[in-house]
Amino acid sequence: MTNTIETISLAEARAVIDICERKALDIKQPMNVAVVDAGGNLVAHIRMDNAWLGSINISINKAFTARCFDITTEALGKESQPGKQFYGIQNSNDGKIMIFGGGVPLLRNGKVVGALGVSGGTGEQDCAVAAAGKKFFEG
Amino acid sequence: MTNTIETISLAEARAVIDICERKALDIKQPMNVAVVDAGGNLVAHIRMDNAWLGSINISINKAFTARCFDITTEALGKESQPGKQFYGIQNSNDGKIMIFGGGVPLLRNGKVVGALGVSGGTGEQDCAVAAAGKKFFEG
Amino acid sequence: MTNTIETISLAEARAVIDICERKALDIKQPMNVAVVDAGGNLVAHIRMDNAWLGSINISINKAFTARCFDITTEALGKESQPGKQFYGIQNSNDGKIMIFGGGVPLLRNGKVVGALGVSGGTGEQDCAVAAAGKKFFEG
Amino acid sequence: MTNTIETISLAEARAVIDICERKALDIKQPMNVAVVDAGGNLVAHIRMDNAWLGSINISINKAFTARCFDITTEALGKESQPGKQFYGIQNSNDGKIMIFGGGVPLLRNGKVVGALGVSGGTGEQDCAVAAAGKKFFEG
Repeated sequence: MTNTIETISLAEARAVIDICERKALDIKQPMNVAVVDAGGNLVAHIRMDNAWLGSINISINKAFTARCFDITTEALGKESQPGKQFYGIQNSNDGKIMIFGGGVPLLRNGKVVGALGVSGGTGEQDCAVAAAGKKFFEG
Repeated sequence: MTNTIETISLAEARAVIDICERKALDIKQPMNVAVVDAGGNLVAHIRMDNAWLGSINISINKAFTARCFDITTEALGKESQPGKQFYGIQNSNDGKIMIFGGGVPLLRNGKVVGALGVSGGTGEQDCAVAAAGKKFFEG
Repeated sequence: MTNTIETISLAEARAVIDICERKALDIKQPMNVAVVDAGGNLVAHIRMDNAWLGSINISINKAFTARCFDITTEALGKESQPGKQFYGIQNSNDGKIMIFGGGVPLLRNGKVVGALGVSGGTGEQDCAVAAAGKKFFEG
Repeated sequence: MTNTIETISLAEARAVIDICERKALDIKQPMNVAVVDAGGNLVAHIRMDNAWLGSINISINKAFTARCFDITTEALGKESQPGKQFYGIQNSNDGKIMIFGGGVPLLRNGKVVGALGVSGGTGEQDCAVAAAGKKFFEG
């Protein structure tokens, strides 16, 4: 029986976002950063000045996707290429499934309590910023 | 010819959101708060702990609507009732037009530079929180 | 048997739009203006500087609606109020049916060859600008 | 902090569209041409007589995409193939992301102030028409 779920608070989401913002400033690439909770629902989002407009939606959906399947969007992407086991998954869930790097689950005590989505640069940049946020949160 | 437009920065959006959050805490009603820029695109969003899930979308769309027509969603709502001049406007823009209180334009030097959307309580509560944010921003 | 349809050309659409723009400048209210052809498909659109963002979609959909039913959106709106014969029609056609003034069919030799949609001001202003375009086209 | 952004005016958008139209006439391929502003919102659109109906949406969305990520849709397309860093990006932003040639950012003084989308012919033709518009605008 599951009667409680661990989830992320707004205070925690903001702290993760702040770390991501600092990392984005470090690498001089403005980003969109979003955090969803254990229910996959948005907790907080920021678009840094001059970050891509198209990345608003992508950052939120990367976070959603990472919680949807408790997996990084990068790893999911590898399994979603033509010929792979999840090819086509990107058409599910009303088009909200993102299959390229920048979305990561956030764990507390080994349990996924939310997820983080970063979008605004190259795949490598998005992943670096997301990793900074994840590392901060998970300690 | 219009070659530049004034818009709101992330720093400003966050400051407005912080004021709204404080007001929401004052009235003991957790809220979703969103800010869009002059182009109607999301700049920042928060969902306070225990705020309604359905209000994520509503807060963002209230802000969008207020910038779409440079009007409060409350005032737009009055003109969108059956028999009124804008009845049916809520079906436009892919269902993103919100016609009840909580969305307000944000002005700087008399120009709309963005908008604020609040959702999570009664119409009165949403409007009170939005008013606090607007007052802070416009001074 | 119907083997040909009369439709509006891009040159005609642009001429109608230019007249509407002039009228909008006269009444000092920036507008979105759109023209669709006999097939209900967009031929041309302009958003005047500082016109409402939410009216891009509305102007196009008013033109679409006026051709959909070969009726002004104002007249359709009267029949779409609660209790009237077309109440609920605004939910059809993927939400593209607009039921307030500003959309008008464009006739040549008594046949509808396209439609005009105007959005950006009060219902009265939108209708005045649309009327100017229609009068110009129909002579 | 970013308080003003450079954007494109209707007069500029029309001038770009006129150049694209002339180029399309030169190569004898009717086109849809659309321009969005710095906020990604439509400023103007034309469909030349006999141009494809399906290209109305595509031209507008190519312009939107080019502004969403400040990149040509052709270049984005190269990074969105199976196995590439942005594979799957075409499912984001409600299906509005176009990943084949014809969408180009428009720069003034080195800043993206809007974007142009062309659709109606082969990829090569769309790109040639878009290039003509971009060259005219950027001088």
